[in-house]
Amino acid sequence: MASEKTLEDLFLDTLKDIYYAEKQILKTLPKMARAAESEQVRAGFEQHAMETEGQIERLEQVFELIGKAPRGKTCDAILGIIEEGKEIMTEFKGTQALDAGLVSSAQAVEHYEIARYGTLKTWARQLGLNDAVKLLDQNLQEEIATDKKLTQVAEADSNQKAA
Amino acid sequence: MASEKTLEDLFLDTLKDIYYAEKQILKTLPKMARAAESEQVRAGFEQHAMETEGQIERLEQVFELIGKAPRGKTCDAILGIIEEGKEIMTEFKGTQALDAGLVSSAQAVEHYEIARYGTLKTWARQLGLNDAVKLLDQNLQEEIATDKKLTQVAEADSNQKAA
Repeated sequence: MASEKTLEDLFLDTLKDIYYAEKQILKTLPKMARAAESEQVRAGFEQHAMETEGQIERLEQVFELIGKAPRGKTCDAILGIIEEGKEIMTEFKGTQALDAGLVSSAQAVEHYEIARYGTLKTWARQLGLNDAVKLLDQNLQEEIATDKKLTQVAEADSNQKAA
Repeated sequence: MASEKTLEDLFLDTLKDIYYAEKQILKTLPKMARAAESEQVRAGFEQHAMETEGQIERLEQVFELIGKAPRGKTCDAILGIIEEGKEIMTEFKGTQALDAGLVSSAQAVEHYEIARYGTLKTWARQLGLNDAVKLLDQNLQEEIATDKKLTQVAEADSNQKAA
């Protein structure tokens, strides 16, 4: 009989999930940047792509800390979130509402990452993986900061258009 | 030629998206409650199911405010998030890590909702839909409170098991 699954297994599964998700996001951000109408939104997506590269490196360090090779696991959640973003890109192409839609898609992505990093950090603490806690917290804080920036962009865009 | 799509269209699309998502969540929460090992987690999911019913009613009021019949639109994001939750329920059934996994799935759901309600609230303000702003903000604040409660449950569970 197989041994019972543990929190270590759940931690590794979720680490693979977010590793896959980050790689998908890295592929998607340049497309979103090219689609954006405003310079501010475009620059924001490009900056976040660079940040995502650093986050992937930190995840690879976490894999190393637990003695596992970095491997992704298909993440249906991020595929669904990205698919909805693509629909918006197609349906609102060339319209004044496109950037608002792109920013909203990016915020759905951010919130998925915030949820996963929050969870992984709690579990890393429980497992006594203190170096992993630090790395995961760095990713978490970056995602929270990016989400706040996106809210500011959305509100500025909204106020400007409402004026 | 079709007229250009506007922020009103984006608002309605996203309202349909979250309406569909909330209905899926309402179907899923009782399953998660039945699967939970601890009384605290089970009670938390049952309470959130009741809250979700109120949130759906508020969304129906928003549809009414903009003169549209309440209709959902398939939301790939929530389907992906729920699918991942189901995998955890199957793979970790009967293990000590199950509740940690269930809570993490619920937090991924919460964060999706937080992203969507934040966006919808900003757009409602821009569109001058002040009554909709209030209803969407009520849902947003409830989701934020639920996410905080889930973090407390996860950390308490984690501290207890680490002790």
